[in-house]
Order: sequence, then C-alpha cells, then structure tokens
Amino acid sequence: MGTKITGVGSYIPTGVARNESFEQHSFYTEDGSPFDHDNSIIIEKFKAITGIAERRYIKDSLNTSDIAYYAAEKAIEDAGIDRETIDYIIVANNYGDVKHGSQQSDTVPSLGSRVKHLLKIKNPNCVAYDLMFGCPGWVEGMITSHAYIKSGMAKTCLVIGAETLSRVVDQHDRDSMIYSDGAGATILQATDDDDSGFMAHKSATFAYDEAHFIYFGESNNQELNDARRYIKMYGRKIYNFALSNVPEAMKTCLDESGVDISELKKIFIHQANEKMDEAIINRFYKMYGKEAPEGVMPMTINKLGNSSVATVPTLYDLVRNNQLEGHSVSEGDVVLFASVGAGMNINAIVYKV
Amino acid sequence: MGTKITGVGSYIPTGVARNESFEQHSFYTEDGSPFDHDNSIIIEKFKAITGIAERRYIKDSLNTSDIAYYAAEKAIEDAGIDRETIDYIIVANNYGDVKHGSQQSDTVPSLGSRVKHLLKIKNPNCVAYDLMFGCPGWVEGMITSHAYIKSGMAKTCLVIGAETLSRVVDQHDRDSMIYSDGAGATILQATDDDDSGFMAHKSATFAYDEAHFIYFGESNNQELNDARRYIKMYGRKIYNFALSNVPEAMKTCLDESGVDISELKKIFIHQANEKMDEAIINRFYKMYGKEAPEGVMPMTINKLGNSSVATVPTLYDLVRNNQLEGHSVSEGDVVLFASVGAGMNINAIVYKV
Repeated sequence: MGTKITGVGSYIPTGVARNESFEQHSFYTEDGSPFDHDNSIIIEKFKAITGIAERRYIKDSLNTSDIAYYAAEKAIEDAGIDRETIDYIIVANNYGDVKHGSQQSDTVPSLGSRVKHLLKIKNPNCVAYDLMFGCPGWVEGMITSHAYIKSGMAKTCLVIGAETLSRVVDQHDRDSMIYSDGAGATILQATDDDDSGFMAHKSATFAYDEAHFIYFGESNNQELNDARRYIKMYGRKIYNFALSNVPEAMKTCLDESGVDISELKKIFIHQANEKMDEAIINRFYKMYGKEAPEGVMPMTINKLGNSSVATVPTLYDLVRNNQLEGHSVSEGDVVLFASVGAGMNINAIVYKV
Repeated sequence: MGTKITGVGSYIPTGVARNESFEQHSFYTEDGSPFDHDNSIIIEKFKAITGIAERRYIKDSLNTSDIAYYAAEKAIEDAGIDRETIDYIIVANNYGDVKHGSQQSDTVPSLGSRVKHLLKIKNPNCVAYDLMFGCPGWVEGMITSHAYIKSGMAKTCLVIGAETLSRVVDQHDRDSMIYSDGAGATILQATDDDDSGFMAHKSATFAYDEAHFIYFGESNNQELNDARRYIKMYGRKIYNFALSNVPEAMKTCLDESGVDISELKKIFIHQANEKMDEAIINRFYKMYGKEAPEGVMPMTINKLGNSSVATVPTLYDLVRNNQLEGHSVSEGDVVLFASVGAGMNINAIVYKV
C-alpha cells in the first residue's frame, strides 16, 4: 500500500508588509542596547542574508484556524474527494489561535476541531487533532498520516500546516522581519500503485543541547516591563546546527529511497533563510561529490517570508500549479521535502509525484 | 506485530486543594450575577455531582513539561528499557507550559522536546512532539503510537499525558473546582505476542455542533475588564453529549475486539465527573442487556479531580501497582481505556494486559 498526495492547496495572506515598513521600528540588541547604525542598513543586511523583501500578514479579523480552513478547502477541491471520507485531519501549528490584540494562545478546542467545524464535516469518524513539532510540523504530519495509511488505520488524510507568526513577534527584535503568516494543506490517500508516492522518510529531534535554540522570551525593549513573551531565536546557533545536520538527514532519506541524486527533480525546503537554505543544498550535493543543479530549489522566501509549518506545502502548491516562474513538477518526478525548526527538529520525505 | 504497554508511571502533584479552600471564592454565574446561596451549598452540590472532594495542584516553580518528565522517568524505569532506544515521545497536552503568574501558553519548543531534553536522551532518532486532542489526548497518542508500531516505523514509544489546569482556571467560575493537575506516562513496545496488547481501538471527533462545548472564555467576574481568557465549558451540553456518544464508541470498540463484555475486567475511563462516568458505564452495559458489575470502574476523581489527559494513565498506573484499594489487574485481563473531552473527541482502546 502506497501513500500519495492527491490534492494540494494554500492560503497566502493578502496583507503585504515590505521591508520599508520596518524603517521606523525601534530595534534593540538582545541585551537591550540600540544599534549603532540606521534601520536602513539593518534592513539591507537582513535582506542580503535572508533574501526576504516582503512577508505576508493576515487580516486582524482572522486566526490561524481560519487560514488553515481556507487552505484545506482548496486541497479538498483539488483532490476532488468527498470531504466526509476524510479519516484524519492533522493541523500542524505552534501557537494555536492568537487573536489580534491578545497575547494568549487559544488552543482548546484544537485547531483541528475548528477546521473540521468550518469544513462542516459531519462524519464523527473523521478524527481531528493538532501536532506541534516546530516548523517541520507539516512534514511530520505527512509522515504520521503515512503511518496511519501504511498500518491500515486510514485511507484519506488531510494534513495542514498553518501559522500566524505576526501574532507572536517582538517589534523591537530585528528577527521579527523574518516571520510571516500562511497556510498550506494536502490530501494524502492510500494507493495500490507502489511505484509512486512516499519512497522514504526521516525524522529527528535534537534536544540535548538544542531544545531551546528557538524559545519564548522577553522583548528586546527593556522599557517594556510586562510579562509578555515573544518568539525568539539564537540565529547563529540555528544556522550552524542546520548546516551540520540537515544535509545528512536529507542524504539518509535519499539513500534509503534508493533514488540516485541525479534523479532528484526538486527540493522543497523550509523557507527559513535564503543563504542558509542555499548552504544546506550545496552541502547536500557536495556529500555526493556534486554541485547543486540550477533550479533544483524553488524559493518563495523573497516575497512570502518564513511562515513556519506553512512554507513547504505552500511552495509545493505553487510549483505544482505552475505559479512559480521557471518551476514545475510532472508525474513521475522524484522530489524531496525537507524541514528544520524549533525542537530542534529535522525531517525529510522522498516522494515520487 | 502487537503493541504492548511495558511500563507505566505517573506524577501526582503534592499540593492538595480541598473543597473547603473554595469557601471564600466569589463565584458568579455565566451572566455575571452572584449566586443566591452560600458557597458551602454550591460546594456541597458540586461534590454530590462530580464526586470531587480534593484536587491536586503543582508547585509554583513547576510547569507541565516538568511533571510530564517526572512521569516519563517512572515509566522508563518501570519498563526497564534503555531510554536511548525510544523511537517516539508523544506528549498529549492542551495548553503548553503556562508558567505560574503568566497568562501565556509557552508551546515552543514542544513539551516533547522539553521532556526529551530533561530525560537527557541524546539519540536524534528519538522523535518528540506534542499532540492536542482535548482530554482524550493520551489515549489518542497511544493509538498513534500503535500506528507507528504496526506500520514498522517504531518499536518503542513513550506516550505522556500531562496537564496543569490550575494555570488556566477562572477563580470566579464554579467549574474551576473540577480541574486538577497531573501527569501519566506509558512505554509502548512492539511485541511478537499477538495474543496480548492492543485488541481494538476507536476514535471520533464531533465538531459540527460540538466544537466549542469546551472553549477559552472570559471570567464570570464582569468587573475584570482585561482580555484574559480561561478554560470554560457548557457542562449540561457535555453531559448529554457524553451520555449519547461515549457508550456507543466503547461498544463499537469492544465489539471489534471480539471480546465478550463478561470478559471485561476493568474500564479506565477519563475522570471527568463521577455521576457522568457512572451514567456512561451503566448505559454501556445496558446496551448489552446487563448491569455494570461492581468494581469494574476504578475511580480517582474523589481525591485527584479532573487532570484532563493525565487521568487515564494515572488511574492505570495506580491500579497496576495496587495503589487503589480493591482494584488490581493481572496478566491476561482485558481492560478498556476510554476518554471524552474538548473537540469534542471520544476514544477507546480494548487492551489485553
């Protein structure tokens, strides 16, 4: 029994925040001191490293579960399935619903339940829950769905990655410019065709030294004396960690699939940071004594920023629907999904379209 | 390939809050009006319905991930396994870590990563994540682990249910007396013995009308004009829902297992409310034209309250270790785990010890 993606959909928020919109922010270092140079220089450096020129924010009236639902509707339509036949809904997210103007995460009921409610699915045998695994949550939801299908416990799964990082950013932290909002969804189905779909998968959690590389911390603005916490990260540590461990996980996964690296058509990697992603891909190919082929790594970070769990399914949706110039996938192509993020977690799937 | 519980552990917080400690609370109805009668009468009625005389609260210095870790250590010790051989750590919880004095849920990194860090597990192939499924989260984590084992993706899983509801209660809501803190953990392992372990399982999500029966809402004290939200529930709706749907789910599961109801030794049901649990069990047996045998349903709610995801594994741990008077299980006994909660979700496992 194989596992195949039969539908994809995504929701790209309509609110565009360009780098210039950060010009007037008061940024501080981690220890609370102001920077020696103008914001224009900070933004220029930021753009050079991350590749981000714009990011997307949802409207004030929306929440993570709403955009998860929008993406799910599209994936269901794309798959052409009867929604009442879905066995599992897994919503990968990290902060629940954080309403505009609130600092609290609303996690009960699960976003899975909220999405199922919005989808108006009546069948109680459609089981909905949330999975928290940092940015690699959507890939992990895919792997878990594969386990349900492989074990005979499910035939059809809806896996969503949805996040609204705009609701947990510290405006006084340069890193706030990285984060974005978005949602992507896929329908996974059991297939008799053993020659396509999931070929191999790999997951890992590094928590001995790395558990708190991404964490919930105080504002960099020390004049804010409230108890509020925000998404925070040790960027340099993460960069080094990712470069040391992601290429190896990708290689383990590819080698297990038996696919030769020359057969790999596209790598859909978590849109964390352009320079980091390039370095990962280059090291991955170097492990095979090769150079990364041009066009192997479609990127959206320039316009869409880092929307955590949503980047990989959104990217795949855009490429699959020929909405990302110069990129396409066709039946029979072998692709690699890969992600890295809070936990620190890494995962990868080798998949034949 | 079967799936068997090879270790169990729990953490029961040391802080005891007796019903009398609520005597001085200012309780209000949902619409903000005070009650016509004294707190002593409210507490008496509460005790008669829920069976709760005491509940447990963790120390201010602890968080959900800490007590999840304590329970996990015990389960690992009980199983006698090398912790580095664990393939998955699934932490069922609902609110992340809510530090004492904070109103924010700290969900990144996942509690799974925090527990793995505290357990000092180095093996990166041990994958840790959180699962949010309301009170039935631990049972659902067990079923998901069973899928990993059945599909060959795992041999050993650590499944934890941990919650500190004391951090999200509204002091002005009578329902606050229900909620408690606790953690329970199990080690699940693949076994060649097909005659024991998991015999059947059943999960369901009712979200069409029921998604928001348990929700995050304002304080009943309307003088509090802050934006803070608390755990809230429509008790009457939940009672009717549970009575209509839980016995049927239990029956579906038991029938699928092929076990005759007379063979059922114990039912470990979510400790939600004593009267409700009794009504569920009575209706379940009635569906088979029988009366519930005395002693089939061990209860801890009287002393331990409702600690959400933690009640079932804690209960099983106590009975398995002969710490609950009049209750025991032996090898070969068939037992039923069942839960119901926010989502609204229901699940059950028929398990041969």
